[in-house]
Amino acid sequence: MATAYINTHRETLDAALSALKARDYWTPYSERASASVYGETAAADGEAAFKSYLGKTFDLPGHPGEGIVSSDEVSPYGIDLNLSYPKLSVDGAIAAATAAMTAWRDAGPDVRAGVCLEILDRINKRSFEMAHAVQHTTGQAFMMAFQAGGPHAQDRGLEAVAQAYSLQSAIPGAVRWTKPQGKNPPLILDKSFKIMPKGVAVTIGVSTFPTWNGYPGIMASLSTGNPVIVKPHPTAVLPLAISVRIMRDVLSDAGFDPNLVLLQTDTRAAAVGMDLCTRPEVKVIDFTGGNAFGEWLENNCRQAVVYTEKAGVNAVVVDDFANFKGLCRNLAFTLSLYSGQMCTTPQNIFIPRDGIKCGDTHMSFDDAAAAIAGAVGKFNSDPAKAVHVLGAIQAEVTEARIADSRKLGDILLDSQKLDHPDFPNARVHTPLILKIDSSERQKYESELFGPITFIVACDGIDGALEAWRSTVTEKGAITAALYSDNPDVQARAIEMGENLGVLMSLNLTGGTFVNQTAAFSDYHASGANPAANASLVDTAFVAGRFRVAETRTHVDPDPVE
Amino acid sequence: MATAYINTHRETLDAALSALKARDYWTPYSERASASVYGETAAADGEAAFKSYLGKTFDLPGHPGEGIVSSDEVSPYGIDLNLSYPKLSVDGAIAAATAAMTAWRDAGPDVRAGVCLEILDRINKRSFEMAHAVQHTTGQAFMMAFQAGGPHAQDRGLEAVAQAYSLQSAIPGAVRWTKPQGKNPPLILDKSFKIMPKGVAVTIGVSTFPTWNGYPGIMASLSTGNPVIVKPHPTAVLPLAISVRIMRDVLSDAGFDPNLVLLQTDTRAAAVGMDLCTRPEVKVIDFTGGNAFGEWLENNCRQAVVYTEKAGVNAVVVDDFANFKGLCRNLAFTLSLYSGQMCTTPQNIFIPRDGIKCGDTHMSFDDAAAAIAGAVGKFNSDPAKAVHVLGAIQAEVTEARIADSRKLGDILLDSQKLDHPDFPNARVHTPLILKIDSSERQKYESELFGPITFIVACDGIDGALEAWRSTVTEKGAITAALYSDNPDVQARAIEMGENLGVLMSLNLTGGTFVNQTAAFSDYHASGANPAANASLVDTAFVAGRFRVAETRTHVDPDPVE
Repeated sequence: MATAYINTHRETLDAALSALKARDYWTPYSERASASVYGETAAADGEAAFKSYLGKTFDLPGHPGEGIVSSDEVSPYGIDLNLSYPKLSVDGAIAAATAAMTAWRDAGPDVRAGVCLEILDRINKRSFEMAHAVQHTTGQAFMMAFQAGGPHAQDRGLEAVAQAYSLQSAIPGAVRWTKPQGKNPPLILDKSFKIMPKGVAVTIGVSTFPTWNGYPGIMASLSTGNPVIVKPHPTAVLPLAISVRIMRDVLSDAGFDPNLVLLQTDTRAAAVGMDLCTRPEVKVIDFTGGNAFGEWLENNCRQAVVYTEKAGVNAVVVDDFANFKGLCRNLAFTLSLYSGQMCTTPQNIFIPRDGIKCGDTHMSFDDAAAAIAGAVGKFNSDPAKAVHVLGAIQAEVTEARIADSRKLGDILLDSQKLDHPDFPNARVHTPLILKIDSSERQKYESELFGPITFIVACDGIDGALEAWRSTVTEKGAITAALYSDNPDVQARAIEMGENLGVLMSLNLTGGTFVNQTAAFSDYHASGANPAANASLVDTAFVAGRFRVAETRTHVDPDPVE
Repeated sequence: MATAYINTHRETLDAALSALKARDYWTPYSERASASVYGETAAADGEAAFKSYLGKTFDLPGHPGEGIVSSDEVSPYGIDLNLSYPKLSVDGAIAAATAAMTAWRDAGPDVRAGVCLEILDRINKRSFEMAHAVQHTTGQAFMMAFQAGGPHAQDRGLEAVAQAYSLQSAIPGAVRWTKPQGKNPPLILDKSFKIMPKGVAVTIGVSTFPTWNGYPGIMASLSTGNPVIVKPHPTAVLPLAISVRIMRDVLSDAGFDPNLVLLQTDTRAAAVGMDLCTRPEVKVIDFTGGNAFGEWLENNCRQAVVYTEKAGVNAVVVDDFANFKGLCRNLAFTLSLYSGQMCTTPQNIFIPRDGIKCGDTHMSFDDAAAAIAGAVGKFNSDPAKAVHVLGAIQAEVTEARIADSRKLGDILLDSQKLDHPDFPNARVHTPLILKIDSSERQKYESELFGPITFIVACDGIDGALEAWRSTVTEKGAITAALYSDNPDVQARAIEMGENLGVLMSLNLTGGTFVNQTAAFSDYHASGANPAANASLVDTAFVAGRFRVAETRTHVDPDPVE
């Protein structure tokens, strides 16, 4: 059974390995939420599966632990969730994970890759169910929850499996080493090499993209032989609980201990992350979330390799640019998508205070700022349509932050509470756009998570680039966008972006957006600035998760039989 | 010029990349110190070059800094060195390294690999000169200094270049990404990917194998774009100074700033390591040396990725074994080689106190211990021959440790001071072998660096394995050897070795030795126990030295020309 999966999925793995090197568009998981792709009953089945969880304790057959935890999950759309999960102590999690490790380690990279690919395939088939779970924990609109929480997350998981397989499979299992000795018989050793997992791995989930940010670390750790304790964000457990259930099912079907993947549910009132992550058995930690806990993990979990994605201050720099309409159209979607709750959404738009040239026409700063704000306002003018892009606000603190931020600048576009046609209690707010001056640095230099944008008047393009460079140097960022028709400015910005370690997008005016990345092609975060110490999915993201054990045995050069 | 080197050395690079995957014996650098390989005048030229350094300040053209440092180098063979080097402040080193970085970064992986291969090629041609420099700083015998300090060190450097090139070259420089949109025009982005070095790299050299342990980190950092500050051990500067000189020459010849490689010489009285390694610009640190400073670096240099090789307690476990003569012969060389001053030399030999079976014959513990000690004694019975394996004792503290250790157990073989036929003041001592009981754990559980061996009486093979396992778990180790004819014991020991993260050698009775490893085949250290956090040369050793910067540019699917 264990070996069957790699045979089933060999073609996908080979294609993924090629895609990783080609870095062109590629995916085996369709982003089309369509009956023709996922089956006639997929949508209804997914919704029914989601509803079956509500008001109950999530079932994880054979999961260790005692009792239940009522989770902190509250639907941003206002429906009743009342979810609870099996309760697991840190001691219990470590013990169960450790006990499961040996057979999984001994199975080797091929078997593990096959099992991970089967996991992703089964998760893919349940993308509608996952979409509802992601929607009602993160607040993402349904279609985004389907894509980002489903196939795009699966893509990133597969990318991690492929990258990990690539490094592991480059090491032969056994070789005969023969060193010539001139006229004398050669020296001969039989050598064997074995991939050894680091130990117990922990994934600390995030509230906004539990699967998209969770799968890479889980899959990278699992495919290199490490058991994984999944500790979701207390407000977004269900998507990872469903994932853990599927992972455990596949592991069982393959003849392995399902405790190779465990769910450690906690609450904000009784958080276990610090206790769990400082355990000596924990050797790998993946974290996505706020800077405070991310930095705490980096500084305190010295026994483990710690991969973090934290927060930064993403920006757009606007220079002379002819297709200003295209810019506005593009940024309207970018700033509205999931109400700015992406770690890739720009917060600051730096524009020269003396305005820019749009082709042959001069455009003042105020006109440019008004045009951008107007485009966002227009984009969200029909609430029935807007909610499908905006989604809902995940956390109450984010909702409060919108209100608190109004006083920070001149309001170019005020945030409005919208009524959702399907969910009367949904927490839906349109973006807030403020005008400030580059001298008011303390206002825009830190992250204000949520749909809050500063359009910042700068001292020319040099001032705009410098405001961008200096804020990102200090606080980090994951993305940046430049709009410029000027090759010199482009070149300078590209070099600055390379040095800053941001994913730099130039002149996006069509259907690609600065806050979206594609697996197998785009690196998500660079690990080169304070926003993250890891990059999805580079070799450093997987190389630290395993070691190689070597045994070498004397071979007599002239055996007497 | 810069691109020429990669063309010259492409064949070597390709062969190295293949060797890395095949892990069979391979090297481009002959270990034969012969005129037929290195040229008729190579031996004489090398000796003359070495002698030309004595009593002078080492010349590093264009090297920054002011004044000179008289080094702490003292020849273990007693000849006068009186070496001094250019003095460089930490500020000066950081400034010069930083200033040199950009052009080197922009040159890309192919050019960098070519320059690194040219460096290794030129170093190879000067292996005789290096042999003298290594001999008179480390105390290695000349032939060992030639091989381990020359071609074998060059092999490890080349292995690092190949591993780094393998990871870097898997990333395309530029691709066009095209995402189909059904009946609509596709989304198109032009993407470029650029390898970005982490920052300034530091290599902290070791006194015993300055080049062998130094080249991997230097070459891995340099080939991934990082400038390298080489800070040798104060008592073993010359081998790295010669290396730095060659590196700078090649960099200059290739049109790059020679300050990409700098020599930071210090003394024990005015050590700069801590100041240097905690500088925020320093992003990569390679260290080989004692546990105290290694752990300090791991704990305090949070701004950098830190690769360490420290100390551990290597062991041999002896079970029933028919070819006991082969065992004795093999261990006699192993324990004598460089007077036990290798981080791979076994310290503890665990033998069941009730003895073992040698084929059909029972051998008591005392007979086994006496046979091993006797073999070592016999091996060193002719001083004129013995000195060519023993070499000299590098440090006075090691010499003192031999004397201090005599009281720790029953002396099976006493250490003797030998006269060296060529160097009357040489510090040559034969191995000390002591018998103790496994209950005297505090005596053998820590490293006693130098030619000091414990033969430990254990409670059967189970007790021997457990004594080995528990000491290595706590203190770490790089190597282990088992002698056993029993498949069950072999299997148990192999599994224990895999879990301990030691390089395990089985039944070595011929011309391969537990304390020797071959580049492109053997991993040196595993990074999986307290003796080291790094492994030469796995992917983790190079993956953490660079990041990838990405820029993506909108492409109109239907361009209007």
